[in-house]
Amino acid sequence: MKIKLGIIGYGGMGKWHAENAPRAGVEIVAVCDIVPEKVAEAREKGFTAYDSAEELLQNPEVNTVILTVPNHLHHPMCLLAAKAGKNVITEKPAALNVKELDEMEAACKEAGVFFTAHQNRRWDRDMLIAKKAIDENKLGNVFTIESKLHSGNGYMHEWHIYQKYGGGMIYDWGVHLIDQILFMMPTAKLKTIFADIKNVLHEEVDDYFKIILKFDNDVTAHIELSTYILNYQPRWLVGGDKGTLIINTFGCDGEIYHTGKLLEKLPPQITETEAGPTRQFAPVPPGGIVTEQLPEVQTDWVDFYRNVSDVLDGKADSKIKISEVRRVLAVMEAARESSELGIAIKFEN
Amino acid sequence: MKIKLGIIGYGGMGKWHAENAPRAGVEIVAVCDIVPEKVAEAREKGFTAYDSAEELLQNPEVNTVILTVPNHLHHPMCLLAAKAGKNVITEKPAALNVKELDEMEAACKEAGVFFTAHQNRRWDRDMLIAKKAIDENKLGNVFTIESKLHSGNGYMHEWHIYQKYGGGMIYDWGVHLIDQILFMMPTAKLKTIFADIKNVLHEEVDDYFKIILKFDNDVTAHIELSTYILNYQPRWLVGGDKGTLIINTFGCDGEIYHTGKLLEKLPPQITETEAGPTRQFAPVPPGGIVTEQLPEVQTDWVDFYRNVSDVLDGKADSKIKISEVRRVLAVMEAARESSELGIAIKFEN
Repeated sequence: MKIKLGIIGYGGMGKWHAENAPRAGVEIVAVCDIVPEKVAEAREKGFTAYDSAEELLQNPEVNTVILTVPNHLHHPMCLLAAKAGKNVITEKPAALNVKELDEMEAACKEAGVFFTAHQNRRWDRDMLIAKKAIDENKLGNVFTIESKLHSGNGYMHEWHIYQKYGGGMIYDWGVHLIDQILFMMPTAKLKTIFADIKNVLHEEVDDYFKIILKFDNDVTAHIELSTYILNYQPRWLVGGDKGTLIINTFGCDGEIYHTGKLLEKLPPQITETEAGPTRQFAPVPPGGIVTEQLPEVQTDWVDFYRNVSDVLDGKADSKIKISEVRRVLAVMEAARESSELGIAIKFEN
Repeated sequence: MKIKLGIIGYGGMGKWHAENAPRAGVEIVAVCDIVPEKVAEAREKGFTAYDSAEELLQNPEVNTVILTVPNHLHHPMCLLAAKAGKNVITEKPAALNVKELDEMEAACKEAGVFFTAHQNRRWDRDMLIAKKAIDENKLGNVFTIESKLHSGNGYMHEWHIYQKYGGGMIYDWGVHLIDQILFMMPTAKLKTIFADIKNVLHEEVDDYFKIILKFDNDVTAHIELSTYILNYQPRWLVGGDKGTLIINTFGCDGEIYHTGKLLEKLPPQITETEAGPTRQFAPVPPGGIVTEQLPEVQTDWVDFYRNVSDVLDGKADSKIKISEVRRVLAVMEAARESSELGIAIKFEN
């Protein structure tokens, strides 16, 4: 089915969808925004543009809407759109909490419309390369997956700095980083969540977090984000008992490291540090560590919209299931509780 | 007082003390070992050498012993040495647990001898540089301290691979890494401990751990060690709201990073990744991040023995207090409990 899209909210992401969704065969029927300048800008670009979501939802041409409004509006806009009989794609985070999501899902079910979230980072090449290396057993038994995102940009922009709009980095990026980890290990149960969440530069909202997820497959995932760590650490580090994968940036530069053979005896050299010797942490002998190229991955983000179209035709299951979105929101809630109370949260036991 | 040292255990560390302690004015009176080859080796090097600790402890010239035996022997050897009226320096970990340490301390107190542990990593230049940068407020309000040690050497050596000898990396290096963090923030209370400890390559003993320590000064310390992460991450990363410190290796190469001014508005550029745009994680504008040299630090490990000598003369307090050693052991016990049960441990509340 051709997706005839109404875009609710013509800010950064609204414009991005207006520009990019057509590549997937999506027709942009109309946009709306409550800011007159944005409406004017949309009209200049040739779009049919309304001052309100209510008007857009009355357009019978629109069969699907995407909600590109600040996070706190996903819930009310979803209810409105479902009532108007439109399929709903919401930007992430789909909702501020599990309760909101459940209400949104129920409303869509009642209206008989399709509901999904734009978890676009499922199509990120860096994540897919890390996943492929694990799936192809290039690293042996994996014991740690570290997913990090550092920035020197410090302050956030626009509504993201306010709590009431659903600001902060857990909502903005935590939702992706958690979703990716769960996506990478679809059959593993998440046993324990421990988190440390801070406001380093911002008054109201989080801008640093470390979330530790212990799974029943003996993998521990470490998710870390900071808007103010100025020497960016690798985007991905995956450690297994047969190798280590590093991906430095979104650009996917990196390598897989192996030992030629596991070094069963330590090298005779001893490293002298200021205060004593170490054998365990002496350099390995020359040639002891060899590298392998990262696996190749093809990915195309517009598959997101192609999948939505196939779902509407009854030809496919949704690639972003609400049950998955719900699980991510539940992890986010547990992470906040963990950080606030200084406790670990038992999850799927 | 001149330290007239008996070395109990002539393995790796015993030899190291025999060779290096004289630089601090220590006289090596005698050594002992239960392995005949090691006794012979010591005699070849000109040392008075015995087959047993009992014999060494009868030598009236010896006023102090250092225990360089496998970890499980620190406790019984300390009790023997105290009974013989010798001051006791034990290698780290001082004991396998707090209970043992308490018994050792009581025995030394009863015998009226001095007791300390060779926590030599207090004199590590890398740690002292990180501490100085924090103390001199070069990073602003610190929110994270990451202390990491990675190796490609894989397997451990000798008795370290067996549980019954007190093997494993928490005992071998965890004791240093925890001690350093507590030393760096002497007035902060440690509120919460969460740990993930694994046996990646070894049957019996831990060779990977991540220990997270949340303090009441809003700093979270992340201690991580692996004998099999093949792309070594920085030894130190300290993040504050005015800068980031990186020290890559024991060799102390690294820098402090600042933003010229905090970037209050995001740069106009947007980074396009495979699956979407990002402003927050776009590169900062050219020149936005500037670097500063690491502070200079002079350190001399032999100050350890000089301090012991001063303590014996009543001229100084011990730089390694048993109360500090006890706190580190308590953290190690809490870390093991945390990892085993998947819970966070409340510590000093």
